[in-house]
Amino acid sequence: MPIYPEPITNLIEEFKKMPGIGPKSAQRLAFHILGITEPEVDSLCGALSKVKKSVKYCSVCYNLTENDPCPICSENSGRNRKMVCVVSEPKDLIAIERTGEYKGLFHVLGGVISPLDGIGPDNLRIKELIRRLKDGVEEVIIALNPTTESETTTFYLTKLIKPLGIKLTRIAYGLPIGSDMDFADEATLSKSLEGRSQL
Amino acid sequence: MPIYPEPITNLIEEFKKMPGIGPKSAQRLAFHILGITEPEVDSLCGALSKVKKSVKYCSVCYNLTENDPCPICSENSGRNRKMVCVVSEPKDLIAIERTGEYKGLFHVLGGVISPLDGIGPDNLRIKELIRRLKDGVEEVIIALNPTTESETTTFYLTKLIKPLGIKLTRIAYGLPIGSDMDFADEATLSKSLEGRSQL
Repeated sequence: MPIYPEPITNLIEEFKKMPGIGPKSAQRLAFHILGITEPEVDSLCGALSKVKKSVKYCSVCYNLTENDPCPICSENSGRNRKMVCVVSEPKDLIAIERTGEYKGLFHVLGGVISPLDGIGPDNLRIKELIRRLKDGVEEVIIALNPTTESETTTFYLTKLIKPLGIKLTRIAYGLPIGSDMDFADEATLSKSLEGRSQL
Repeated sequence: MPIYPEPITNLIEEFKKMPGIGPKSAQRLAFHILGITEPEVDSLCGALSKVKKSVKYCSVCYNLTENDPCPICSENSGRNRKMVCVVSEPKDLIAIERTGEYKGLFHVLGGVISPLDGIGPDNLRIKELIRRLKDGVEEVIIALNPTTESETTTFYLTKLIKPLGIKLTRIAYGLPIGSDMDFADEATLSKSLEGRSQL
């Protein structure tokens, strides 16, 4: 069975580990790498290492950041510190920020409760959220993708937060059910924020 | 406009330069990188650098190789040195090798004549092919993707090689027209080799 020179095979294997990259795409990417210059490869490798070395989680909201606390949580961000918007992933936070409608803080759970995937409340940053709520937070907005898992998570959060006497809201289901929040347009997301309903 | 931390944005930009990777795929790949361990990133970077540093073109057939001449061209490969199969790209060579039917040598042109893309005979390794034919080559098999550009290239090669008194053949059009040779199954490719016709 003839094969490519070993370094090419290795690179193809590396690419195949990536999400959405099958054998043919991996081969195509490997040939792309063969076709670009060495400084271009160095620039790619630099970007790869940099992202691992310098990007960490904000110790307050668990957003991805180079500086801790992140620019949104830092004291001089001018954000409304009485509101906390709860999202599943950093990309959802970015989606909300893109609307320009929200001026409060965030809290990134790191997923949603999903017993089938073995993700329970203890695997998410829920304890960390509850701890933050003691610092004069007046409203918590839940902004999760409209899925069954998110419903469970919202139910769980409601049980924990309601007794604290904090206003608890959730973004309006302007989003089509089953879609991914990250793909929603700014207008739809803005509507969801506006039409939030008390739980 | 809020954005990701700069290292993530940079990495997304790097991924977007790759063929078939749009903004959403690039973002997905960047988050994949954030989720894997540092040794895994090092292994990916290692594979990227290695491929640029150690893979070169064979000085005889222009296949990709770690050693020059490549394993097929090297003296002790046991290949039939009287036959040369002309292909466009290294991946086409691999496709033919996969059939296990062909025991001769190869010559990789590095493309096909395509005036619309500014690729003329001088941009391909045609001179290098003609030079090789003086070493006792008895048959040249043209194995190009069934496209108009390949027709032009075949016509051009025929004009150059026929006068040398060397047998010139072309793989049978068992391949569906407009498809990519690299995607053909072994049986179809074997049939194409068997049914080659004299030009």
